[in-house]
Amino acid sequence: MDSLHPSTDNETDEAPWRTLAAIRATRPLVHNITSTVVANFTANALLALGASPAMADLPDEVEEMVAAAGALVVNLGTVSPHGMVAMRRAARKAGAAGTPWILDPVAAGALGARTRLARELIAAGPAVIRGNASEILALTGAGPAGKGVDSAHAPEEAVDAAVTLARASGAVVAVTGPVDLLRDGSRRARVTGGHAMMPRVTGMGCAATALIGACLAVEADPFAAASHGLALTAIAGELAGASAAGPGSFQVAFLDRLHGLDRDAVVGRKRIG
Amino acid sequence: MDSLHPSTDNETDEAPWRTLAAIRATRPLVHNITSTVVANFTANALLALGASPAMADLPDEVEEMVAAAGALVVNLGTVSPHGMVAMRRAARKAGAAGTPWILDPVAAGALGARTRLARELIAAGPAVIRGNASEILALTGAGPAGKGVDSAHAPEEAVDAAVTLARASGAVVAVTGPVDLLRDGSRRARVTGGHAMMPRVTGMGCAATALIGACLAVEADPFAAASHGLALTAIAGELAGASAAGPGSFQVAFLDRLHGLDRDAVVGRKRIG
Amino acid sequence: MDSLHPSTDNETDEAPWRTLAAIRATRPLVHNITSTVVANFTANALLALGASPAMADLPDEVEEMVAAAGALVVNLGTVSPHGMVAMRRAARKAGAAGTPWILDPVAAGALGARTRLARELIAAGPAVIRGNASEILALTGAGPAGKGVDSAHAPEEAVDAAVTLARASGAVVAVTGPVDLLRDGSRRARVTGGHAMMPRVTGMGCAATALIGACLAVEADPFAAASHGLALTAIAGELAGASAAGPGSFQVAFLDRLHGLDRDAVVGRKRIG
Repeated sequence: MDSLHPSTDNETDEAPWRTLAAIRATRPLVHNITSTVVANFTANALLALGASPAMADLPDEVEEMVAAAGALVVNLGTVSPHGMVAMRRAARKAGAAGTPWILDPVAAGALGARTRLARELIAAGPAVIRGNASEILALTGAGPAGKGVDSAHAPEEAVDAAVTLARASGAVVAVTGPVDLLRDGSRRARVTGGHAMMPRVTGMGCAATALIGACLAVEADPFAAASHGLALTAIAGELAGASAAGPGSFQVAFLDRLHGLDRDAVVGRKRIG
Repeated sequence: MDSLHPSTDNETDEAPWRTLAAIRATRPLVHNITSTVVANFTANALLALGASPAMADLPDEVEEMVAAAGALVVNLGTVSPHGMVAMRRAARKAGAAGTPWILDPVAAGALGARTRLARELIAAGPAVIRGNASEILALTGAGPAGKGVDSAHAPEEAVDAAVTLARASGAVVAVTGPVDLLRDGSRRARVTGGHAMMPRVTGMGCAATALIGACLAVEADPFAAASHGLALTAIAGELAGASAAGPGSFQVAFLDRLHGLDRDAVVGRKRIG
Repeated sequence: MDSLHPSTDNETDEAPWRTLAAIRATRPLVHNITSTVVANFTANALLALGASPAMADLPDEVEEMVAAAGALVVNLGTVSPHGMVAMRRAARKAGAAGTPWILDPVAAGALGARTRLARELIAAGPAVIRGNASEILALTGAGPAGKGVDSAHAPEEAVDAAVTLARASGAVVAVTGPVDLLRDGSRRARVTGGHAMMPRVTGMGCAATALIGACLAVEADPFAAASHGLALTAIAGELAGASAAGPGSFQVAFLDRLHGLDRDAVVGRKRIG
């Protein structure tokens, strides 16, 4: 049962726009430890939004980078032996340095080693966890695995698991899919919009995670940062879908549209409810 | 001399379309251990075709992923120390689990370490080997190396080597280039089409390999799977070339066209002969 | 103070075009040890220019690849433990084999480990060093670090550091930004042009580095090679900017425009002065 109070009492349609404007004004450094599959698209999405991405995953470098960054993004998409060391060090350093961070537990549940890694990292205190329904279910032991990196469940099926995970970890939990559902220990929100082409482009979920990371660098409330990041992703996706001929041109248009987001595009679309 | 019988007796123009329809209906999980250069494009090509790509190369994870996957793709494009371990484990597990797999011996012949790795992996029993002419010649010791990852030979020059390699390994061997030539111990086929821009985009050969991997997940005969994967690649390339202004827009259009392939586009073009 | 003599006495507007024509005629093999973020875009930029890229970073392979290559590109964008070993071996081998090479010291100054690595590699004798102003300042100990991979300084601020670094290392030093400044021990040049969208696409600087690498393979004077590579980058960027709707389409158009560069486009634009 989903008995939490909506978080929208304190939100206006202006809030995601104010967050975007703050990112563009301050160009926060966002440190990513991420997958070789999505590194280029993630960096380009952060640049298009207005942030300054850096992608170091050498264990000897990550503590220095975390200390300098406005936010940290840890994505388990492809995990290398040295990357695992880097992730653990970066997460610990983020806690010590007060750098907010987000975890994307890609394929948790489908693979034992990264399910264990995801749990270990969650214990280090991410501000936000974003995953698909299968990943969130797997992290609470509440459901069978997804198929590789793809979800086998709808977001609604993972609502209880999201609340459980949020309460156990202290993190905001975002379950994304056709509709995105956010929970923390006491609040709930939905983000609608986006486009049917988004799951046909690799790394769209990873891009959403990174964009939330950029929001975390300028917005102190992680619940608001997560909902704004997802709303901006959904709006850019919706605009991209209007002109794309397929997943190749969708990926290109998504970056163009992120870069071109203006007040009218953001405020005119109520995406968080 | 090339005395094998054409394989087309049992093939109709419908066959590649039926394979594509089966991929879209079942969305098979295709596990890739591949290059950091082409990981994004490969995953997007598999998604555009209709498959579900996963790209894990952590040694501790690959056996679990191979067991869950409908097919495995091993691509030597960039080899890391842990990736080499992962490739060996994955190939062995594929044999044990009955998961069909394809090897792309990128730059075999040009570099000693990966020529040895390619031979070692071939001994583990791939269903298909896809390479350019220089790579196939090098694997049989029949020719000098290519230039880096590019072929120094035409496909026709590697026909005898392909038959030798097919008979020695039990694999279907696909030698790709302006025309693609397929051989196994007893059959032969040619796949025509494609576009002159294809060698100007990095990873087009790797994408062909991955698309054959998707076909292997739904088509029991590896010879048919290889020819269908190459035919679908050639058709999408031909369509992409009709509208592309250069290699950048070609890459984008290739993904759009793969995603948009319909019965008319596939059946109307006889590519396998 | 910047008292060196302009290098343009011996340069005509034809020179970059002649270098490009030589690349297309000989398709030189350019070996890259580079970042997982930019590997795909770098390879595609080299292919679009007319070169033959190879991206191996396995320590056991790089010496063989360097010996076969016309030029080597070492880019510190993301550094892995085995990649660091590969970089050191490749740089040493390049010296022994007479293969010209270029260093891109990404984020030097911002991170201690790679600042040390960059200095160590510079001691191995690159023909060219290309960085942003903050990176060049950091390598001479003359300025504070940039923000992650982005520069906190204008190229003009790094002119003295560039001369110091050029004289100490024997390398041509290119400081890129809105205007690119080149120095060696006795010469200076400026390259103008480009487009405001270029810093909004990840890896545009890395692409410039790789394109200089291709020029090094066909042009014996590293100062000329560096200025031609930057001029071709600037011209393709300017043309791409004329049609791009944002950073996504800019990246695509840049590859199309590089591929389409003809004599009129290159000779008609005086970019080196």
